[in-house]
Formats: sequence, C-alpha cells, structure tokens
Amino acid sequence: MRNLGQVAIVGAGQVGTMVGAALLEGGRAAGVTSVALYDADPEVARAAVALGGGELVLPDLGSVLAADAVVLAMPLGEILAWLQEFGSQLRPGTLLLDTGSAKSAVVAAMARRVPPGVHAIGGHPMAGSEASGPRAAVPGALRGAVFALSPCRADDVALALATALVTASGASPLVVEAADHDRLVARTSHLPHLVASALAAVIAEVGDDLDLTQALVGTGYRSTTRLAASNSQMVAAFATANRVQLEAALQEFRQAMDRLEIALTAGPGALEAALARGRAGRCLVLGQT
Amino acid sequence: MRNLGQVAIVGAGQVGTMVGAALLEGGRAAGVTSVALYDADPEVARAAVALGGGELVLPDLGSVLAADAVVLAMPLGEILAWLQEFGSQLRPGTLLLDTGSAKSAVVAAMARRVPPGVHAIGGHPMAGSEASGPRAAVPGALRGAVFALSPCRADDVALALATALVTASGASPLVVEAADHDRLVARTSHLPHLVASALAAVIAEVGDDLDLTQALVGTGYRSTTRLAASNSQMVAAFATANRVQLEAALQEFRQAMDRLEIALTAGPGALEAALARGRAGRCLVLGQT
Repeated sequence: MRNLGQVAIVGAGQVGTMVGAALLEGGRAAGVTSVALYDADPEVARAAVALGGGELVLPDLGSVLAADAVVLAMPLGEILAWLQEFGSQLRPGTLLLDTGSAKSAVVAAMARRVPPGVHAIGGHPMAGSEASGPRAAVPGALRGAVFALSPCRADDVALALATALVTASGASPLVVEAADHDRLVARTSHLPHLVASALAAVIAEVGDDLDLTQALVGTGYRSTTRLAASNSQMVAAFATANRVQLEAALQEFRQAMDRLEIALTAGPGALEAALARGRAGRCLVLGQT
Repeated sequence: MRNLGQVAIVGAGQVGTMVGAALLEGGRAAGVTSVALYDADPEVARAAVALGGGELVLPDLGSVLAADAVVLAMPLGEILAWLQEFGSQLRPGTLLLDTGSAKSAVVAAMARRVPPGVHAIGGHPMAGSEASGPRAAVPGALRGAVFALSPCRADDVALALATALVTASGASPLVVEAADHDRLVARTSHLPHLVASALAAVIAEVGDDLDLTQALVGTGYRSTTRLAASNSQMVAAFATANRVQLEAALQEFRQAMDRLEIALTAGPGALEAALARGRAGRCLVLGQT
C-alpha cells in the first residue's frame, strides 16, 4: 500500500484541528509527509495551525486538490456542497475521507460525484465536544475513540488507506454500512441533540423567574442540556441529512416519554419500574453492571 | 441565637454523608458539637462514618430525637413517612431540616405533624450526582452550592439556625417559597431526569445492534443520559411528590419537541432557528454570552 503522503484537511474547526493535530503526532509512521489546513476563513486556518492542528495553511482549492489525501471536516451541508462542486476534480489515486456525523447522504454524493479512480470513503470520528472552532480541539481527543468508516463503493485501497489514516490518528477504525451508522447515530447522537435543545428552551422560558432559575440549576441541568450549546447550523445540517432515521427515533422517544408520564400518574411504584428500564438501558449500552 | 449543638443526620447515603462531612469540616465555628449519622441499614451508617461523614453512628430513633439539630437526608418518600410517624415526637427547640428535592409536600407535612415549638424548615442542596450511597459523596461538593431553604411557617429561629447550618457546610442559603422551588425544580431537575431515562430506554432498544450501538455512543450520549443512572426509587419519589408541576413541565417539553420536529420537516434553516432558541436559553440560564 502506498504511503498517505500530503494530507489536506478542509475545514479548520474543532474536528479538522483535532484530526490534523493527531496526524502531526502519529502520522509519520504511516507515511504522512505533511498536514495542511484549508478553511473558507483563512484566519481560522491560521489559528488552527498556530494551535498545532497542521503545518501550513493552504491558500486555495487547487492546493487542496493536489494533496494525496483530502479530509473534509466541515459541517455536513458544506461537505455535501463540496462534493457536488469539486468531487469530480479530484485526481485519481487520491484518498478522500470525510468526518460528517451522517453517512448515507455523504457516501451517496461520493458515489455520484467522485470518479472511480479516487479512493473515497465516508468517516465519522466519535469524539469532540459541543464547542466550535480550532480552540475547541482537545489534544488527544481522538486517542482510543471509535472512528466509523462507511464505504461508498467496493474499494479495498480506500478502506486500507483510511484505516491507516485513522489508526495513525490514534483512533480505532470501525467499518459500518452507512445505513446502519445513520440508524444508530440518529438515536445515540442526533436525537440527544434535539432533546437537549428542547429541554434548554423549556427551562429558559420561565418568565420573571430567571434569577431563581439560575440559582436552582445543578449539575443535572448542565449535563443534560450540554449538547444544546452546539453550533445550531452544524446540528441542523446533520439532522436534516439524517431526517428519516431521526424522525423514527423521535417517534420512539415520544413513546418512551408517554410511558413515563403514564407511570407518573399511576404512582411511585409504576414510575420506579419505568425509570429502572432507562437505568438498565444505560448500563447495557455502557457495558456496566 | 443558640449554637447548633449536636447534629443528627437521618439517612447516610450520598446526601447525608456529604452534609455530615461538610459540617465536620466547617461546623465548629457555628457551634456544632458533634455530627452523628443514623441509617435504617447500620452498615451504611458505619461506612459513612468511616468515610468522614460523621463522628458516630446513632443506634436508634431515640438518640436521633435527642439531638439539637435533625437533618433528614433520605429519599423523599421516606422523609414524608418519617415526618408522619415521628414528627410529633421532636423536642421543642430542635432544628429540623430536610434535603429532599421537592419542597411543597415536605413543608406541608412539617406544618401538619411537627409541633410549633420545633424549628422546622425545608431544605434542598443543589449538589450531588446520579450515584448512590456514602461512597458517592464527593468531598467539597457543597462548597459554593446553592442550598434552598423553604419555610413551613413563620419562624425566624428556624430560618436563622438553618442558615447557620447551611453556611457552616460551605453552601449558600437561598430562601425560596416551596411552591416557587417546586415549579422551577420541576423544570431544571425533575424533567431532565425523566428525559434522560426515556433517551436511555430508546437507545438501549436497538435489538441485535447492541455491539454497534456501544461503539457508536460518544460523550453526547454519556452526558445527556447521565441522570438516567440515578436511583430509580429516589427519582420516582420526588417526581411523584412534585407531580402537578412535573406534568406541566412535561407538557411544555412536548411542545418544544413538536416545534423541533416541525422545523426538521421544514428544512435546515427552520431547524437551525429552532435549535438556536435552545442554545440561547442555555446561555441565558448559565449566565453566559
């Protein structure tokens, strides 16, 4: 297999900076020869480089297309727009990987717009926080994190190159069909984003009681609403891209809330049993006993 | 004002141990002469003392009633049962404070069952985690935390003594009517508990995809569902005690979810605007810009 060579990351926000920093640290062994960043806002790219997210700022699209590996790390809507506009201009042999949190729309756009000689594959690092921008990239955040890889077509070289890049970044590659990824991530991530936002909206609408509300929020409020602090445009983009699965998840969530409300009316014993179901579910998913 | 004297804490779980440890550390100046723990399970009380939550284990109800200050730190249902059964046996002059997270039911029971000569007042420390038992008491958790105080009747001595106890524990007393407390805490805490549980239940119900789900949960899942790990009996007790306010909060939450779902159907621009409302709400409540 060829070396990864020159890596160009498009989008120098939290994710692009996180991936770039991880490749600067661990990429040499996988044959990464340089890590460069491009951002529509050159100031952001310069800040990311200053923070250790890359070695240089790329000035334009031409220099991105000249790289051996291109990583798209923008919000999902921009990834789709980029593939539509520039996908056909990628050179044969280039590795193309994205980092968006919904995969079906991305791999469909890759299959449609990227020439077969280009090694394109979808990706999604399960790391990062609700904050935005290069300063939100926490050093080491990718270490040990799952990095989902969703093929857009049969291409062993794409899979091998992407696996090498992900492994070099310290993350663990997990190959998963885009449809399976989207069905599960709708529930583990996209639904929680909407729920956190709704909760934050309800709690803020207390009219004249803001001072008292501020005093009466605790750690539970902070953690449950944390995702509501995410960039709204970014969340809207991936939620829209994964709309069908997210609507199904919303329906399941509504039923789970209805069960709890019925149990609340029935009394403490019934409510305890209903709450125990959520508790057991969390233990199951986190692999705790 | 008299000194706080001998403090007896009933319930040696996370909250009782947390309050006891804080009073051992800071109570001397407020005239605390001893901190003793009682628990229906003597093993738990002994563990709490071993962890620094108190100086001694009280053997029975009689020794609790002999204290100068009694702090009820059990789950809410047990607090109400204790007041019903033993409230009338408290000696005149005793300070009686509880730590339950719903206040109207407690102050009503205090007013009904506790003789007027006893200085009774409701309390709620805004600290602690979803974990249970004395080992879950994090040293210093009360420091700087708000400790709500809800009077059950006009009693300046009760308020002064409770304020002294709370201040000695390192927390900040906040006097708030029980009805106001319950209306706001239904939204800042009780609703998030139910939402976290429903979310955890939905995500666990993925059938054969458990392995993949476990790989595809990130930090967002962990924080949004954290409260679902709480003791189900404890949550059922306070949710039931605050049922009317919680039902109103559930109704508001359902409307906020409906707004988001309609916006999801309408497109990314509409969804971004709806999500921005939650984001702004969280900033407002947390006093961020």
